[in-house]
Amino acid sequence: MNYCAQCGARVEFRVPPGDSLPRHICLHCGTIHYQNPKLVVGCVAEWKGLILLCRRAIEPRHGLWTLPAGFMENGESTTQAALRETREEACARIAIDNLFSLVNVPYINQVHLFYRGRLLDTDFAAGEESLETALFCEADIPWQELAFRSVTLCLKAYFADRLAGQFKFHENDLLPLEGY
Amino acid sequence: MNYCAQCGARVEFRVPPGDSLPRHICLHCGTIHYQNPKLVVGCVAEWKGLILLCRRAIEPRHGLWTLPAGFMENGESTTQAALRETREEACARIAIDNLFSLVNVPYINQVHLFYRGRLLDTDFAAGEESLETALFCEADIPWQELAFRSVTLCLKAYFADRLAGQFKFHENDLLPLEGY
Repeated sequence: MNYCAQCGARVEFRVPPGDSLPRHICLHCGTIHYQNPKLVVGCVAEWKGLILLCRRAIEPRHGLWTLPAGFMENGESTTQAALRETREEACARIAIDNLFSLVNVPYINQVHLFYRGRLLDTDFAAGEESLETALFCEADIPWQELAFRSVTLCLKAYFADRLAGQFKFHENDLLPLEGY
Repeated sequence: MNYCAQCGARVEFRVPPGDSLPRHICLHCGTIHYQNPKLVVGCVAEWKGLILLCRRAIEPRHGLWTLPAGFMENGESTTQAALRETREEACARIAIDNLFSLVNVPYINQVHLFYRGRLLDTDFAAGEESLETALFCEADIPWQELAFRSVTLCLKAYFADRLAGQFKFHENDLLPLEGY
């Protein structure tokens, strides 16, 4: 950030009075520009034991598989975000169950949330940001071609809980991985 | 947002190609400025059955009581945010247990998360953003003087779960309330 989004003057990067962290401050109009983590919200959508995955048509991780998920928008709730992303990326309609997984990714300032959900029908298809969409049984999940570690963590916990007969809430923190 | 934070040119508010929502776009340098919900993270910290509350020294809701909580910062995890806010607002050290409550507040683009926690000692005190801090038993919670509805929801669920002998995860969506 170089300029004040409010008035267009150059911003300084310094600790405001009473604060403990440096912020982008406009000395012209006084605006303090805070930057905060973003929420990425998605879901594990099941149909008769199979899981819906999307193959990414966009960067990062073009060509790799992921759960339907994306940045939460202003004005919506976390469940609305999961419904919308599943509709946008997989053209799929789901019913949302409980929040299942929270993954902190602090080195890129993100928090990932995954809900459990159920597909209402099999009329899904690749949305604009997907190359293809498909249902996978546990044995066929393309573990080596998953796009994000948060997705891998979520799916592993999902199958473990399903086997155990009880879905719990899971929380994990990711550390940077070399080359990832 | 009027100016591009990147290059200082005037921004336009329009739907980018391939997107479905209007964004602030810089036609000079091409930057799209996304705006997303913010996370507010805090905790219900208990000491021998009593709950730690802070009376706010800042707006909004100056003078009203709240759980220690605040905006999550870049570079930290949700539990680190809860620990930091409890230290900053109540000078208190806690151990964090499970995530307890998620409250969507879409009309102000916020998601509130509250963890359960345990005070490690009673050496707490009002931080810079608090007028005072105190431990309350359930019967003495100042329900009419709580600062935020998400705090009220969280505390009601907390006491109900404690009575029932099991803490579950709770999720709620708040709608705008007239005059609130």
